[in-house]
Amino acid sequence: MGFSALDHQHMARALQLAEQGLCTTTPNPRVGCVIAQGDTIVGEGWHRRAGEAHAEVHALRAAGAKAQGATAYVTLEPCAHHGRTPPCADALIAAKVARVVIAMGDPNPLVAGQGIARLEQAGIPTQVGLLGAEAVELNLGFVSRMTRSRPWVRLKAATSLDGKTALNNGVSQWITGSAARADGHRWRARACAILTGFGTVRADDPLLTVRDVPCSRQPLRVLVDARFEVSPTARLFNGDPVLVVTAVSNPEKATALAGRNVDTLQLPNAHDKVDLPALLSALAQRGVNELHVEAGFKLNGSLLRENCVDELLLYTAPMLVGDSAQGLFNLPELTSLEHARQLEWRDVRLIGKDVRLIGRFQPAD
Amino acid sequence: MGFSALDHQHMARALQLAEQGLCTTTPNPRVGCVIAQGDTIVGEGWHRRAGEAHAEVHALRAAGAKAQGATAYVTLEPCAHHGRTPPCADALIAAKVARVVIAMGDPNPLVAGQGIARLEQAGIPTQVGLLGAEAVELNLGFVSRMTRSRPWVRLKAATSLDGKTALNNGVSQWITGSAARADGHRWRARACAILTGFGTVRADDPLLTVRDVPCSRQPLRVLVDARFEVSPTARLFNGDPVLVVTAVSNPEKATALAGRNVDTLQLPNAHDKVDLPALLSALAQRGVNELHVEAGFKLNGSLLRENCVDELLLYTAPMLVGDSAQGLFNLPELTSLEHARQLEWRDVRLIGKDVRLIGRFQPAD
Repeated sequence: MGFSALDHQHMARALQLAEQGLCTTTPNPRVGCVIAQGDTIVGEGWHRRAGEAHAEVHALRAAGAKAQGATAYVTLEPCAHHGRTPPCADALIAAKVARVVIAMGDPNPLVAGQGIARLEQAGIPTQVGLLGAEAVELNLGFVSRMTRSRPWVRLKAATSLDGKTALNNGVSQWITGSAARADGHRWRARACAILTGFGTVRADDPLLTVRDVPCSRQPLRVLVDARFEVSPTARLFNGDPVLVVTAVSNPEKATALAGRNVDTLQLPNAHDKVDLPALLSALAQRGVNELHVEAGFKLNGSLLRENCVDELLLYTAPMLVGDSAQGLFNLPELTSLEHARQLEWRDVRLIGKDVRLIGRFQPAD
Repeated sequence: MGFSALDHQHMARALQLAEQGLCTTTPNPRVGCVIAQGDTIVGEGWHRRAGEAHAEVHALRAAGAKAQGATAYVTLEPCAHHGRTPPCADALIAAKVARVVIAMGDPNPLVAGQGIARLEQAGIPTQVGLLGAEAVELNLGFVSRMTRSRPWVRLKAATSLDGKTALNNGVSQWITGSAARADGHRWRARACAILTGFGTVRADDPLLTVRDVPCSRQPLRVLVDARFEVSPTARLFNGDPVLVVTAVSNPEKATALAGRNVDTLQLPNAHDKVDLPALLSALAQRGVNELHVEAGFKLNGSLLRENCVDELLLYTAPMLVGDSAQGLFNLPELTSLEHARQLEWRDVRLIGKDVRLIGRFQPAD
């Protein structure tokens, strides 16, 4: 049994609604719901914030008695468990909807299929997979956390046309233009956490907050600082939460940061560096779906070498700064192009005077 | 007096016709002509090859008696001088056209305006400037040669996402995919000449001919080889014309290349290198409108440093090859981003698996 044009129209609307929660639902997924009688939408809703009502509940409230006999379009399989809110599958059953169309099943292997089973047991037919790729794309971080126990990692960098991120004297402000920088803040805003390294904090002393775009929430800032060298006066420690990840303990430094909303985590690897894959696991355990990386040559290179990057977000400025300037990634020398890390372009466009390139790595073998 | 919608339609057609000569008119400009009675086109033509009939002559022949009282749309001011063919202005007058619409005036300062003057003297009203920017774009090499006495120089390069053109062991085949390489041949085909350096010939031994696209003419290959080191057995010397530009004389080498359709030119600068600006002048004198550069790190850098590049044609492959690999351009270290060479993007698009970026330098002060 296929999907009708009307089904497509309503699910596309449900996806638009889900996208309203792009920057606020963390650690929950972005979910939208449309309740329709034929071509008439009788209720709409989207999930705003963890702990608040799910998309289905908003839509059912708006529909009221008109939900009876209607079709519900949900971008993600309705939940069947009692979390901070009661199960949405039960709410749909109680409202006596006639049919439920679902874009994608719950990616959590522990609960996948349970919402659908509960609906089917109540005699409500369900159909899954309409605009499923779009639904997965909208929640690629949540899917990554549920299926791989690590966040979706997006590495942002700004380079000149000749692949340089900064001059040798450290000057990097600003290679890209204001439109590209504002676009970068939009990507920060949708991330659950922003990761940087000690080298970047020492060189640029960034705040790493979301500023150029409206945002009701600040992502967690995560600082990789193997030797715990960061100065307690760094601008990063502005009172919003920071997680400092080290390879060593330093009780004095931790004390100096006390009361500054700073958490610390010690995750050494065998080389006295921070164990980056273990860090990704730890962040997933803390509910980080999308991790946005803004780091320098060395940490970027380490993340790439250890297969800790899923996507590159690269702004290329139309300027040449010379071959001796600072390169993009510290990566080992190759002797054959067969060993080069391959990506696939996802999006290429002009942003102001700069070109934005989004590429995804082929999954590591 | 403005231009009507019909004027735009006919001139757009004339530009399409002119583009048919993209790869063949050298050293002449690409020109198209439409003769129309109201919305009816009674004759069309375009210039195919130097020495053959101009666009206006083809169009007038096709129109025959219907040219009388018609409007002629020409993408470039009709010539008023006796060259290899008689003046087109006279042909339009003899055919008794009622009006002539011209996209752009002749860029040659020595003859500019003479064709228009001759038409006006014969009582035929003319209008200039319709789709003028498009006409200039189509002949930017010819315009460059006429107004600056140098070709339009387009530098082509293929890099990885991290700005590298080759591995340190010289391996560069192939960073980009087959679609990008075929696209590169289309740009070679429209060029009057292709320039490379001794380093590239030594490393890759390229033919530098047009192969992947249909082409009835091979551009002149120009080899910059300051010390005249090239081997007479290089594949470049395949019988099609080559110009070797040196800073030294080497009668033995010249003798070894005799009978191979190789010309030599000695153009030393004060540093015993080839004087690149002087080379551009020499190529303009030989009728080179568009010069296509496919060279390596050093010659590319020298051309950029000496302001001998107008446009970058860059193919960026979705792969990372590491920071120690070969960079794009040998350019001096900067201490401030204000001194970075700025470009403006002209075109950005996917070509197969690669991204093609075309940028133009701001005119040097």
